[in-house]
Amino acid sequence: MRRILVANRGEIALRVIRACRDLGIEAVQVHSSADQDSLPVRLADASVCIGGPSATESYLNVDALIDAAMRTGCDAVHPGYGFLSENAGFARTCEERGLVFIGPNPAVIDAMGDKAAARRIAVEAGVPVSPGSPDPVSGADEAAAIAGKVGYPVLIKASAGGGGRGMRVVADEAALRDTLERASAEAAASFGNGAVYIEKYLPRVRHVEVQVMGDGDHVVHMGERDCSVQRRHQKLVEESPSPGISSDLRRRITESACALARHVRYRSAGTLEFIVDADSEEFFFIEMNTRIQVEHPVTEAVTGLDLVKLQIIVADTGILPLRQEDVHFSGHAIECRINAEDPDKGFLPKPGVLKDFHAPAGPGIRVDSHAYPGYALPPYYDSLLAKIVSWGRTREEAIARMRRALAETRVEGVPTTIGFHQRLLSDDRFLAGAVHTRYVRETMWAGHPMQHML
Amino acid sequence: MRRILVANRGEIALRVIRACRDLGIEAVQVHSSADQDSLPVRLADASVCIGGPSATESYLNVDALIDAAMRTGCDAVHPGYGFLSENAGFARTCEERGLVFIGPNPAVIDAMGDKAAARRIAVEAGVPVSPGSPDPVSGADEAAAIAGKVGYPVLIKASAGGGGRGMRVVADEAALRDTLERASAEAAASFGNGAVYIEKYLPRVRHVEVQVMGDGDHVVHMGERDCSVQRRHQKLVEESPSPGISSDLRRRITESACALARHVRYRSAGTLEFIVDADSEEFFFIEMNTRIQVEHPVTEAVTGLDLVKLQIIVADTGILPLRQEDVHFSGHAIECRINAEDPDKGFLPKPGVLKDFHAPAGPGIRVDSHAYPGYALPPYYDSLLAKIVSWGRTREEAIARMRRALAETRVEGVPTTIGFHQRLLSDDRFLAGAVHTRYVRETMWAGHPMQHML
Repeated sequence: MRRILVANRGEIALRVIRACRDLGIEAVQVHSSADQDSLPVRLADASVCIGGPSATESYLNVDALIDAAMRTGCDAVHPGYGFLSENAGFARTCEERGLVFIGPNPAVIDAMGDKAAARRIAVEAGVPVSPGSPDPVSGADEAAAIAGKVGYPVLIKASAGGGGRGMRVVADEAALRDTLERASAEAAASFGNGAVYIEKYLPRVRHVEVQVMGDGDHVVHMGERDCSVQRRHQKLVEESPSPGISSDLRRRITESACALARHVRYRSAGTLEFIVDADSEEFFFIEMNTRIQVEHPVTEAVTGLDLVKLQIIVADTGILPLRQEDVHFSGHAIECRINAEDPDKGFLPKPGVLKDFHAPAGPGIRVDSHAYPGYALPPYYDSLLAKIVSWGRTREEAIARMRRALAETRVEGVPTTIGFHQRLLSDDRFLAGAVHTRYVRETMWAGHPMQHML
Repeated sequence: MRRILVANRGEIALRVIRACRDLGIEAVQVHSSADQDSLPVRLADASVCIGGPSATESYLNVDALIDAAMRTGCDAVHPGYGFLSENAGFARTCEERGLVFIGPNPAVIDAMGDKAAARRIAVEAGVPVSPGSPDPVSGADEAAAIAGKVGYPVLIKASAGGGGRGMRVVADEAALRDTLERASAEAAASFGNGAVYIEKYLPRVRHVEVQVMGDGDHVVHMGERDCSVQRRHQKLVEESPSPGISSDLRRRITESACALARHVRYRSAGTLEFIVDADSEEFFFIEMNTRIQVEHPVTEAVTGLDLVKLQIIVADTGILPLRQEDVHFSGHAIECRINAEDPDKGFLPKPGVLKDFHAPAGPGIRVDSHAYPGYALPPYYDSLLAKIVSWGRTREEAIARMRRALAETRVEGVPTTIGFHQRLLSDDRFLAGAVHTRYVRETMWAGHPMQHML
């Protein structure tokens, strides 16, 4: 592999460029017209404008991406996260045009992209899934029968969804009948697929995900990340190891993740997401993300591994040069997502020009960011400005360093989530490691006028 | 300990502030009138101007420093490196005024500050020193007798010197007699002490230093750093572990370092410097630095320890909370010093305004720097702009990451050593780990018009 097309933007594009550099591979950065002054464009070996500012004109534009790769002589494409990273059609088109898609094979993306199908595969692999329908439901009567069996409240979920989009909680049969058709119509509109299924809703759970990596022949895990601090199913803080699970549960959950990944002969980096009932120590598979995740640096901090470099090596050679016994865990890491959003206004994204930007540094701090002083955040994409990752020998040390880093960070021109993180890092329940996925809404934001937005 | 006076400037001041933050201790930053807009001043909890721009008016002004500490209610003083960090008189004055000096006790600073005395103590502790005079020489005849015994070339060194200042190499007795008086006069002028001693000169040696930490009762080592890449005895690159020594030699040299530190009941962080003949595997103690070193992050990267935090904890509690078996080593780390100097003009320092400054980041990279876009480097102090530290699972990975980081770094407005480092990192001998302390001058700069400056 000599040259890789970076088919993404922002901090993850920069991350891929860095991995290319470390491997002596050239990086060609695509960009929309809105991103032409971006840091990835400046730091890549070459760059290509692929279209207008909206994502459909550029980062979701398969033809423009393939064309850019062919014209610049790339032999591979790294999709990053979001955009086309879990689009099996894009992966197939890359392969048809002789480009290596740096990710799993398209059939696996397809299988895991269908959330109902992924549940079925998990069951086949002996991995627990939460009680619910084995397949998409055919109508309100079937849904009501299943919901009655597993017990309310239940979740209505879009088969083609993911990341919490198109999800509804219903408390009883009347609500289920009332909501089902609307949820299906919404799923059809959002994902081009109206299939929905029913899952038992567990209200006070932790979100624990396992990082795996495979080459089709063997699979290793790199431990878990706890992403329980969320608002509207969007992660705000991630850490590893999870402060809320026992070592026995950790062993069982990572073994399940590897079993499922092995079952589909998984290639590249992937994440298996689970919900965990901390009291009963039960855990249930919810979905798999067949790409690199935003929060992967947390895993890099505790293992010393470079996940993006490993993705490229697996794509290039077909071999993951790592056995499970080569993966060592050390200390504790936490990531805070610094978004250009106003937590006091319901985390409303707020693009603008960074009048000033100074990233924190020093021992135990890593910052992945495409921001710089004077950078104009375009309004077309996500609001992620920087990921601050702290590492410490203990969770306490990682938290102290994160507090220091947040205090050092200077962002002027847009509101950010820094204040939210500072509040969280002095919250007794968070410090005790005792939070769940609805904690921000139900406890931290209790009584806040914007509570309904979370 | 509630509040610490940071009695230094630049990146090390920022480093101390960060350690204070991590411990929940307030940091009061002193500054000269030239440093009032500096990053440490901005990031500290409070700041005090202590005098005019020259170091004698400010950072070397004992009365002004003590006064600043007393007026701001500090209970301790961190001296950083350089300036008053190895001045036993300053340490004593702190103690007399009820301020904890964060460093060793004054008697140990005194003993180790006298290089001839330090050699004697090393011999007492059973640590090898290079052949030479056990005490300062009384005159040319004694010097010539000793030099004749150990064999030419020899070094004339100032007892009160250090860091290579006031050092002369002489090839024969005529040169010795010719130089001795001048060297002594220079030592008297530089250090207020004309005592000099004779040491065998070993031309092709590695510089290997051992990081130790003690609390008076026990001592641990944190491995070695190889600082063989130098020009005029000034370190340019440091790495750990040393690529040029065997594991047996590593064991012997770290044991020697601990023996010497134990012998003086060492307290706080200290570094024992050795020269190593890589062929014969002989090593000789040359001097001890009784303070934190510029290159300490290299050791932090491979051990995961925070040395400045440990200095503060030892000063505060009297106890080093660490046994040798708690010190684990992982991977390889390299530091490149980015100085505002022009390597092609004999590394001449060049202050100026940073029209732009963008530090590198990403996996495995840590940057300690007080620079920011628009920062005006004062001409009064050293030319250190940033320390880039890379860590990798192997030396190769650390080097690849350092190359990537150097390419990402953007400094506009002053010349820097970045180009020198890039050249070094593609030098076959350096890549093979086969360099010595005169390598930059004799091989890398061979034939360069400025070779005589190195």
